[in-house]
Order: sequence, then C-alpha cells, then structure tokens
Amino acid sequence: MPLISIIRDFHPMNDAKLLTRAEELSPTLHHEIKEPVGGFQLKERYSQEKEEIVLQKIPHLAIGKGQNLCLDFGRHMVGYVTLELSYSGSHPDAPAFLKLKFAETLEELSENSDDYQGWLSRSWIQEEYVHVDVLPSKLALPRRYAFRYLKITMMDTSPKYRLIIRHAECLTETSADLTRLAPLNSGDAMLDRIYDVSLRTLANCMQDVFEDGPKRDQRLWVGDFRLQALTNYQSFRNMDLVKRCLYLFAGSRFPDGRISACIFTRPTVDADDTFLLDYALFYVVALEEYLQETGDEEALNDLYHVAIHQIEMAFRMYVENDVVNAQAAKDTFVDWNDSMDKSACAQAILIYALRYAQRLARRKGDFSQANWMGQRQEQLRKAAMEHFWDAEKCCFVAGGQCSIASQVWMVLADVLPPEDALNLMRRVDDFRDYPMVTPYMNHYYVMALLRVGLKDEALGHLKAYWGSMIEAGADTFWEAWNPEQPEDSPYGGRVVNSYCHAWSCTPAYIIKSTPSRAPSPQGEGKGLGTAGPKSLPLEGKVARSAG
Amino acid sequence: MPLISIIRDFHPMNDAKLLTRAEELSPTLHHEIKEPVGGFQLKERYSQEKEEIVLQKIPHLAIGKGQNLCLDFGRHMVGYVTLELSYSGSHPDAPAFLKLKFAETLEELSENSDDYQGWLSRSWIQEEYVHVDVLPSKLALPRRYAFRYLKITMMDTSPKYRLIIRHAECLTETSADLTRLAPLNSGDAMLDRIYDVSLRTLANCMQDVFEDGPKRDQRLWVGDFRLQALTNYQSFRNMDLVKRCLYLFAGSRFPDGRISACIFTRPTVDADDTFLLDYALFYVVALEEYLQETGDEEALNDLYHVAIHQIEMAFRMYVENDVVNAQAAKDTFVDWNDSMDKSACAQAILIYALRYAQRLARRKGDFSQANWMGQRQEQLRKAAMEHFWDAEKCCFVAGGQCSIASQVWMVLADVLPPEDALNLMRRVDDFRDYPMVTPYMNHYYVMALLRVGLKDEALGHLKAYWGSMIEAGADTFWEAWNPEQPEDSPYGGRVVNSYCHAWSCTPAYIIKSTPSRAPSPQGEGKGLGTAGPKSLPLEGKVARSAG
Repeated sequence: MPLISIIRDFHPMNDAKLLTRAEELSPTLHHEIKEPVGGFQLKERYSQEKEEIVLQKIPHLAIGKGQNLCLDFGRHMVGYVTLELSYSGSHPDAPAFLKLKFAETLEELSENSDDYQGWLSRSWIQEEYVHVDVLPSKLALPRRYAFRYLKITMMDTSPKYRLIIRHAECLTETSADLTRLAPLNSGDAMLDRIYDVSLRTLANCMQDVFEDGPKRDQRLWVGDFRLQALTNYQSFRNMDLVKRCLYLFAGSRFPDGRISACIFTRPTVDADDTFLLDYALFYVVALEEYLQETGDEEALNDLYHVAIHQIEMAFRMYVENDVVNAQAAKDTFVDWNDSMDKSACAQAILIYALRYAQRLARRKGDFSQANWMGQRQEQLRKAAMEHFWDAEKCCFVAGGQCSIASQVWMVLADVLPPEDALNLMRRVDDFRDYPMVTPYMNHYYVMALLRVGLKDEALGHLKAYWGSMIEAGADTFWEAWNPEQPEDSPYGGRVVNSYCHAWSCTPAYIIKSTPSRAPSPQGEGKGLGTAGPKSLPLEGKVARSAG
Repeated sequence: MPLISIIRDFHPMNDAKLLTRAEELSPTLHHEIKEPVGGFQLKERYSQEKEEIVLQKIPHLAIGKGQNLCLDFGRHMVGYVTLELSYSGSHPDAPAFLKLKFAETLEELSENSDDYQGWLSRSWIQEEYVHVDVLPSKLALPRRYAFRYLKITMMDTSPKYRLIIRHAECLTETSADLTRLAPLNSGDAMLDRIYDVSLRTLANCMQDVFEDGPKRDQRLWVGDFRLQALTNYQSFRNMDLVKRCLYLFAGSRFPDGRISACIFTRPTVDADDTFLLDYALFYVVALEEYLQETGDEEALNDLYHVAIHQIEMAFRMYVENDVVNAQAAKDTFVDWNDSMDKSACAQAILIYALRYAQRLARRKGDFSQANWMGQRQEQLRKAAMEHFWDAEKCCFVAGGQCSIASQVWMVLADVLPPEDALNLMRRVDDFRDYPMVTPYMNHYYVMALLRVGLKDEALGHLKAYWGSMIEAGADTFWEAWNPEQPEDSPYGGRVVNSYCHAWSCTPAYIIKSTPSRAPSPQGEGKGLGTAGPKSLPLEGKVARSAG
C-alpha cells in the first residue's frame, strides 16, 4: 500500500511570526559552473549499449533525426542547465524537436518512461520535450534538475540540417558551503569514499530547505531532516538552515497543532495533509539536538511548546493503557515496508522521543514536565516488555512478526537492560522476514549496534551496506537499496526512485561521531554552536545515560 | 517528390545596405487580448466525440490524470498564450505534467501526432509537454502559436490533486492594422464571409514579415508574398511591410545574385538555399506592382538592378532557343503537384514576368532594356505556340500532359489571341488529369478567367472554391484544399498542413479589384501611395494593354 494521505478541505494552521522568522533565515545559495567530462551515444533508443564520444568531438558532432547524445557531467549535481545549440547543413527550416532526459544513474538513461506504471506520478521523471525555433541559440532550461547524465535525443529535425551541441553547462546550486569539505583520510579507501559520497549527498539535498531528494519531492520531511541536521553538524554546520526548517515545521501545522510529515514552501509555506506519528516525534528529537549544538535561546522559547504539544498529542491520540493503539502502527513510517507491523516501532519511538522531550523540558526549566516525561518513559518501557517481548523467541514481536526494525527501535529506546540489548543485537540478523529496504532504516540499525557497543559490527555494516551502493555505481546515496534485490523500488518503477536522498547521507555523521574519532565525548547539552566540524558523542551512548 | 533543396556550403550574398534599410522598415506589431469563447472535453484521447463545457464552468472544472479540456478561442489567431493554473484537492505534491496541443482546426485536436509519418518535420506540430512545478501559477508559454483550439491534457498529476484552468488568454500579434477592416456588405452573404475570412487570413500572416503561414514556416516566400502584397494594397495598405520584404529578398540572395525562394529572418537574415524560377520571376512582378502603388523612387533605384538580374539569369540558365529547358520545369513550383510537367508554365511565367520587367525598365527610363524585353516577349510567345500548342487538342501540352495550370499560365502570359484565350478558358475544366491542389493555383485560375472576360465564371469559382473551405469549417483559408479530396495533404499527413496560409488570402483582392467594383480603373503606373483602400484595375486587363 502506497503512503498517500488525502484530507478533504485541509487548511493548515499557519503562524505568521514563526514563518516570518523562517523566511529571514533563508540561506544563501552557492553556485558553480560545471561542464560535461565525457559523452557517449546510446546505440538504440532504450539499450544500454553505448559508443563513447571523445569530449573534444562533441562540439562537432551533428545529430540527425532519432539520434542521441548523452553527456556525462562526471558526478551527481543539482542545478540549471544551459545548452548552446547550433547546426550543420542548411539554415534550419523547421524547429529542432528535442527530448531531454536528465538521469541520476546510467540505468535511468536507457529506460523507456512509457513503461513506467508505478503509483507515484510519472511527472517526476526528469524528461522534457523542447522545440527550438531558432538556431544557433542558447537553451536555458528553467527547471532545476538533479542529475549526472543528460541524454539529448533529436526527435525530429528536417532533412536540411542536423543539430550540434556546441556547449553544455550546469549552474549548480546548494546552500552547503563546499569549502568546508575535507577528505576523511581514514586510511581505509572505502570508508573515505563513503564519507565523501555521504557529504555530497547531503550537499545536493541542502537547498532553500533540507530537501528529502533534489530529483523528486524537493521538500522538507521531518524524518529526513533530522538525519540531515545531524550530518550537517558534523560537516557544513549551516545552523541557520536547521533553524529555518524547525521554524517552518512549527509555522505551518495541522489545525490541531500536530507537526505535518512534510512542508511545502512553494508558492507559499504550507503543511502537507500527511501525518506520520514517528515523524512528528522526531521533531522533538531534532529540536533538542539543535539546541544541544547551538544553545539557541530564541529557538527554545519559540518552539518548546510546539515540541511538547507533539508528545501530548501522541498520548492523547495514540496511547491506551501505556501501549500504542492500532492507529499508531498505521500512522508510523519506520521503513518502506508496508506489510510490516509497526506497532512495536511506534511504541519504541515514542519512548525514544520522550527521552529528548525530557531533556528539552529540563533545558526550559520545566522540571515538573521533565519528571512526568521520565515517569512516562518507564511506564511505556514496562508496557513494551509486557506487550511486545516474546520470552520464548527472545525478541520483540509485533502482530506475530519478528522484524529487525522492532528490535532496533526497542534497543534505541533502551527498553532492555544493556546485556539483553547486546545479545538481541547480536542475533538481529536472524530476523530476515522483514528486511530493511532503505538507508534510513539501515541508519537506525547501525545506531542500535553502536548503542549496545558493537562498534566493529556497526562500521562493518556501514561499509558493507553503503559500500555496496558505491560498488553499484552510486556517487550520491540512494533513497532505496536492498543489495539482495537491486531492482526494488518502493514506487513500482525505479525510474522515479531518488538516487540522491537525504536520509541516506548519515555515514559521515556516524563516522565522525563514533568514539574512536571522538576520544573525549562531550556531555549532552554542551554544544554551543562552535564553528567548524567537531566530534559529537554518539547519540546512543549519551542518550542512554539520560534515558 | 517533396520539394527539398540542399546545397552544401551555401553562403548567401548579403548586402548590408539593403538589409539595414529592411531593418529600419520593421513593422509595429499590434496586440489584442483574446479569451476562449467556449470549451469541451474530448471523450477519448483521439476521438472527436465531445462534451460541451459551459464557459462559466471552466474555472471550476478539475481535470484528473488522462482527462482533457479543450478551449475554443472562437476564431483563428496568432499569438502568445498564458494560462492561470490552480488545483483542487490537497496541495500538489508532484508537478503537473501537461500536454498542450494548439490546433487551427477541430480535426487536428483529435489526431494522434504519433501517427504522422509525412516527410515534413513533425517538429511543426504545435504540441508541447510541460511540467508545472508550482501551483497556483501562471504558465506563460514562450512560443508563438497559430490556433483556434487549445487542448490541455493532464498527462499525470498525483492522486492528491486535480488541475484547474482558472483563466486562459492569448495576446494576439499582427502587423495588420485591424481598425482598417470593414465588412464588404456586398449583399451576398457568402461573398461577405469569404471577404472577411480572406482578410483575417492575411492579417494573421502579417507579422514581422509577410509570413507564408503562421503555424509552420513562418517565413517569407516570394510566391506568397506577391499575393499578400496585392491583397494588402486593397485592405491594410501596410506599404512599409511590402517594402521591407522587397529589401529582404534583395538583401540576401544566392551567391550569383538570384532571388531565393524564401528568406529566414532569425537569428539573422539569410536566404534559404532553395531556388524556384517562378518565385524569382515573381520578385520582378511584385516590385513593379509595389511601384505602381507607391511610386517609391528609393525602392526603384535600390532594387531595379536586382529585378533585371532575375530576368537575365532566367535567360542565361533556363532558356535555349527561346524555349525553357528541362531544368526550368524542375525548378518551377506552380502548384503542389509533383507529377505535373511544368515546362509550359515556366515558359509562360517568364513571358508574364517580362511584361512587368518591361514596365520597370520604362519606369527607370531604361528604354533600350524595355525594348529588348518587348522583343523577348514576342519571341518567347512565338516559341510557346510552336513548342506547347497542340493544334489537334486545341490546348497547351507539356510532356504529353494537358493540365489546367499550363492553360492558365499561357492565358495570363497573353500567348493566344484574345478570342482563342477565351475559348480555351471556357474548356479549361475539361483538363482534369492534373487538378489544382492549392488556393495559390486557384487564384491564378480565377485571374485567367477574368483576363479573358469570364467575370461571372471567375466569381462563381471564387465562391465555390473558397466558399467550400468555409463550409468545411475554415475561419482562415487553408494552404491546400481539393474539395473532392478533403483528406489530401502535400506533406503526407494533414496534421502539419497550414490552415491559415498566405497564398489563400486573395479573394479580398479579387473582389475589390474586379471592374464592377472599380468602375473607373486607373491607368497603370498611376498608383502613388494614396492612403486608404482604393480600387485597382484588374492585373490582367491592364497588363494586357501593356504586354
């Protein structure tokens, strides 16, 4: 079942003061001009068989009806493309009718979009048909694209002339300050590469907001945002962009005050009519993490009540006798796995969020609220053991299912004593019935391994999983990746998959914040917005002492 | 055989002085804002079955995936379209992927462009695919279209929203001063309608130059231009536009000085590498007619030598022993009828052009040239009778063919004595093997009828032929029309036919310049650029006395 929420006559509750502050925090966008580094022609329209074209020959290559030229810009980029077009032969006596296909991966180039029958709109396919009336001329495409490859197909010309692509360039766009990028130099080539690709992924998703993916939704989703913010703290440290997004979420919410799963910013800021319980709770987590980094009093004062409201709403709507109800499981995302029972995850994520909410309350001096949060955590943990722990199978079971996700989230929520959690995580690979589909879920899997102290296993999994994407050709990390099912798409067709996706950018965060790289972890709440990348304590390790 | 000329490494000879003058004569473009007058939905994608939509309902009609809305702008127009787009349902979470098809006729709307397999470029089909990223928004299309209908098909949206066309408008463009348009009020409703449609056709082809058709080539062809200029003298009287075009043709020519069949004006002025003997000769005719209207000394001085050069070239390249050679027949257009032998037409058109060249020479005071022209006419007429007149069949025969076109042009060239010409034109309908395909040829057919005095037959044919287009739905006159074969296209597919075509605009000229409307015809060469429409003598009648 695809995740589509439609609420009739939905009118978000907008807060002008918060949205004005968000607007003031709009980032400076940085630009670079990038040119292709190579080219090739696909021999048939939908084949992958290609003939390389030496770069120097491209400005002299005349393309006739039905022929194509593919430009390789060398790496994934986000920006605006301009083509300088000319011709050979007679003066063009008919428009040049071109098809332009922008692709993040080589495979996309040769796919026939007409074959796509998935449930997500085909309008996301980055494909344009363009008539060029005058040649020579510059074709400055008005839309922003996320791509590495551009395939130009001459749909029709006239017998009198052929098209020449004299020059092509992309004006890249990102709010990440790329001058802050430095190689990892870990001594491990694959780790260095993963680190590099991870930050490139983040940079290409950092635009006017933290986008989930620059090819497709291009908007702000809480689940992605929280992970982007964490990675940003370890790299570009664009604190204002994090703050802007926190204000945007708070500035446009459901009419009852709930944080929407995602925010539109064009033509005006609007909350989407999609609600996800786990995403709303991650708002609380993200706010606390931001304050830990910056100590920003303004944000604390403006946004504290919004965060606390999410916790109250969760209890009011989704908890009965300390256990999440059926609706909670339905309204929780966790991973692109619609057949998986998500009730144990929902229970765990609520406990997890309470830990951050408790810290927020302390930070605000709201100690009665903090105490209440502490008590509720304990009650929910106890109920979690009673309702989800299967003593016989020695694992958490939800709806008869023993999924990796349930174990991971229960571990991250500190529901088990440390030794039991360690033992559970050692066996977690046995629970293969509900494999992890996204880097997003794989991130939390690695965090759970780290939380129980399985550092080698965590880094091993990181290298194996994200490394396998690199081996499969990624120069930014993908939205969905199951190494055992590389053809999988959550949308029913890979052509709409996002191949540069925010929630996949966390390896740089994990690498930078593991204890080996941070021999003197700071205490929680000490982050005060110091400039430049700094080592962060492992979320898990710190959180445990706080939980 | 399609008419495609390709000359390798063709570099026109450009005359900077003449082109600068042409540039100075660029017309003021007039604009109006026009809105749809009705709408409908086509029930299936390529069916003509439609459901009317009341105009007031259009701004509330929500269009889902696969659905369409057709807007009817009430009449043919040329201009730039802006759509105000909105949505119903949730905030759009994916771009709107639209297909826009502009059509001059209702039939075009329901044709599947993929079915088009003609030899002319499919890039002429006025069809765009557009992604709209932000809604609500204005979509201002950058290209100019010639159309009456606009079909908007929602290729894909998302399940969360539907598209609404809040408003649509066209900013029309023409260099014709429409305030000069007045109804004919002849007492004959069909004649009035033909007159009106004829001038609408001319107006929509009057742009930065006299275009042959605003949907397709959008450029300056001599054959069309001469007829547009004639009709313009009887209506909009934009003399500078005629002059500009005369300078453009002269300003960019074949390297040997020949007038090209057509001129490109974008990105810079360039002669096409297409040469047509009859078109080059019509340059001489058009210049003389312009001078007759205006007495413009500057044009006479600047362009006389160019015109005379066309005559000299014709004799040098295409005449042997007073008869046109085989190449002349190949290089002559006459009509879209590739199997027709055009040698008799070529011979006749050269004689016809000599008549105008002789007048030009007299006007310039170049009397030895004028005498030579007179002698050459007589020699060519004599040779025409010897080579093309079949005494047995009592008609002109070329390559064994007895076509209407050969008779028409021989009559217009005064090759026969008046009584013989009259008798021939009375029998001309017998020559049905090579029917006339275009309004262009039908124009000369009517002129030949008038030349021999068959005025009723001329007006009867005008009403029958152009009237049948109106009965078939034309609100501007079409490029090609054979009432007996309405499906015909010179291009192998009607979807690229032009349904507002310059060479079809002449009924207004014919009606206004027939003797019944011009009881006191002026003598030739008396036109001195008087403002306002005036009655012109019949080209034929005057020319005869001059020939």
